Amino acid sequence: MFGARCLLRALRSCSSVPCPRHKPSTKLSVRDALGAQNVNGERVKVQGWIRSVRSQKEVLFLHVNDGSSLESLQVVADSSFDSRELAFGSSVEVQGQLVKSPSKGQNVELKAEKIEVVGNCDVKAFPLKYKERHPLEYLRQYPHLRCRTNVLGSILRVRSEATAAVHSFFKDSGFVHIHTPVITSNDCEGAGELFQVEPSSKIKVPDENFFSVPAFLTVSGQLHLEVMSGAFTQVFTFGPTFRAENSQTRRHLAEFYMVEAEISFLESLQDLMQVMEGLFKTATRAVLASCQEDVELCHKFIAPGQKDRLEHMLKHNFLVISYTEAVEILKQASENFTFTPEWGADLHTEHEKYLVKHCGDIPVFVINYPLSLKPFYMRDNEDGPRHTVWAGVLVDRPLPAPPSVCSLYRFSSVLPLPSTAVAF
Amino acid sequence: MFGARCLLRALRSCSSVPCPRHKPSTKLSVRDALGAQNVNGERVKVQGWIRSVRSQKEVLFLHVNDGSSLESLQVVADSSFDSRELAFGSSVEVQGQLVKSPSKGQNVELKAEKIEVVGNCDVKAFPLKYKERHPLEYLRQYPHLRCRTNVLGSILRVRSEATAAVHSFFKDSGFVHIHTPVITSNDCEGAGELFQVEPSSKIKVPDENFFSVPAFLTVSGQLHLEVMSGAFTQVFTFGPTFRAENSQTRRHLAEFYMVEAEISFLESLQDLMQVMEGLFKTATRAVLASCQEDVELCHKFIAPGQKDRLEHMLKHNFLVISYTEAVEILKQASENFTFTPEWGADLHTEHEKYLVKHCGDIPVFVINYPLSLKPFYMRDNEDGPRHTVWAGVLVDRPLPAPPSVCSLYRFSSVLPLPSTAVAF
Repeated sequence: MFGARCLLRALRSCSSVPCPRHKPSTKLSVRDALGAQNVNGERVKVQGWIRSVRSQKEVLFLHVNDGSSLESLQVVADSSFDSRELAFGSSVEVQGQLVKSPSKGQNVELKAEKIEVVGNCDVKAFPLKYKERHPLEYLRQYPHLRCRTNVLGSILRVRSEATAAVHSFFKDSGFVHIHTPVITSNDCEGAGELFQVEPSSKIKVPDENFFSVPAFLTVSGQLHLEVMSGAFTQVFTFGPTFRAENSQTRRHLAEFYMVEAEISFLESLQDLMQVMEGLFKTATRAVLASCQEDVELCHKFIAPGQKDRLEHMLKHNFLVISYTEAVEILKQASENFTFTPEWGADLHTEHEKYLVKHCGDIPVFVINYPLSLKPFYMRDNEDGPRHTVWAGVLVDRPLPAPPSVCSLYRFSSVLPLPSTAVAF
Repeated sequence: MFGARCLLRALRSCSSVPCPRHKPSTKLSVRDALGAQNVNGERVKVQGWIRSVRSQKEVLFLHVNDGSSLESLQVVADSSFDSRELAFGSSVEVQGQLVKSPSKGQNVELKAEKIEVVGNCDVKAFPLKYKERHPLEYLRQYPHLRCRTNVLGSILRVRSEATAAVHSFFKDSGFVHIHTPVITSNDCEGAGELFQVEPSSKIKVPDENFFSVPAFLTVSGQLHLEVMSGAFTQVFTFGPTFRAENSQTRRHLAEFYMVEAEISFLESLQDLMQVMEGLFKTATRAVLASCQEDVELCHKFIAPGQKDRLEHMLKHNFLVISYTEAVEILKQASENFTFTPEWGADLHTEHEKYLVKHCGDIPVFVINYPLSLKPFYMRDNEDGPRHTVWAGVLVDRPLPAPPSVCSLYRFSSVLPLPSTAVAF
């Protein structure tokens, strides 16, 4: 065995002799196999799960997927390979030659020389059925298997790509990433209902509270980030956030991920809006570039038209209107709103939708909110008689998205604080 | 005001007319100012906190830091700028010309033309004192201010850089990032003491449990990742993890961040070890490249010799020895261990330390652990009479580090599971 041999050599000298690593140079992900250029019978090995089996008289076609892409790799095998074990859902390792595909469906295919079944799948007991498009409600019963479906696979790949893009964007923009605490004693201005945290009953703690004070799950990292922005001019956090809201809507989740950023020495709300627009566009571009097929799948089946909307958004600058102007636009609208638009009242979802449509389906920053709607520490515009502050909201067409997408983007500038006045 | 002008223009057309953004082209971070090449009196603006004030007869020297680097920017001003407000801890905005510094301490300096105090600092009340190196114990009392010290600033920059490097490494290696749930009903094989989560008392829930079942904070994302590895061949998570252990040591934290990864279709432990070594080296290289001064500060004051050890580690391949060989080495050691090394017993920290020293201060993978020490589902080496499994641990010299650095790295390969047998 390679492992053992390598071991012996390393041990004998126990020095700087390099330990040669087992490099399976021919192992390829499905994504890399599909993207290979000028293939010419290279010997490769691909591992994954069987998505389809088509048995013809002399040839056997398999589609193998390993989660690296939506598209599967077509494996072409002699019919002698055919066996009951090569079933939908089984995991296999296929070795063979990567060749140009003569048919239209794909660029390359794998001519199998060896097929090994790593894990069997009992097709009858397996809750996912070949060629069936299972409703999401059905898939909820199988959280351990649903990630093998096209839809969940696509969403997880998109989420992974978007997560990486958020980190890259902030890093490239000079922000310092802060892991703000998840367990905290503050409730961040009552941003939401709290979960309380206590050691499970098994543990005995001398004090009444494990942390000396009652402890909760964070509803926002804002206060901790604000403290950090007293030492770093640009900080961000991207972590889990919790709300104990007992409502079953696609807008409410007990646990979700939130991006929060703070910039010190802000000179205008434009500085903030520029960062927000940059973040949206950079992340969108990254997702469109890396997960094109996944976005197209969502575009077709999950959120009709979504890809067009994203491309439309990328082509245009976000608009900026004041709260006062937004109210004027709403008042002049022919639409019948449930909540009559009025200066001094908060905007409702119906208003936000209208504003975005009115402005050509481009995300719109609504800024300079009434002082009366915002906390006392917002920076004053010192205007009148309609007194406003440096605070706004980015409104966008609500996504017909899975519930983990948050669509509310608030931003504001607070009063500059003297150095010693920062509260914690 | 620029903001208002921009608004009006956008509103008038409410179309695709781009909204010109306020681009303060001359605003520079301290890091960028310090790194500027061939400076020749460019007009720039720098914002930050005063780290030192030195007033001479005709000239005033300030050092301004904005958290972007350990080093501060020297500001040289005419003594007419001198004022009581320009004190240690105050936040300022300085405009002027970036010039080559005539003195040795720095490459560039900022000849001030305008200095604005954004936030005053009452030096007497301010708990951080000019030129004093405050002990970490003292700084613990001021969590809202300690990030302005050199030590905490450096650690936070290093942590931010390392976080970004972890994400990049896995992305570049084709891993899918998964946000494994923080609130969960499983206790991951009793990996640690649990925190229980309940809505705070204010909320009334019809059911006894908010989530129908008792809910806890995750102690490991392992089980969720294992499920995902049934659909994606390479997955990782990097999130907060919780242990309700009532012990005050630098090895125990109630909340910490953990990297976990799963690879399907593993052919040998070498595949895993290669990823682990790659992760360590890539992240270390990124930190050394971006935070050189910060690492040097730690090297001098926090973890003496740390930089040399990191560079030593980068120059060598990690070693691989078997558990059996490790026990042999320990038995032959002249050292008196508190726990006598014996085949079948777990390795203790004293053993790990000895092994690393014995192997030339290079991290060592100890593999092929006794079957009796590991859970039933580990992959069997089918050897004998000393029966071992595909499981190991990476041992390294313990870091004299702040407590957020975890130093235990376990890895293993489990039995291949048939597709329908995955439990959730």
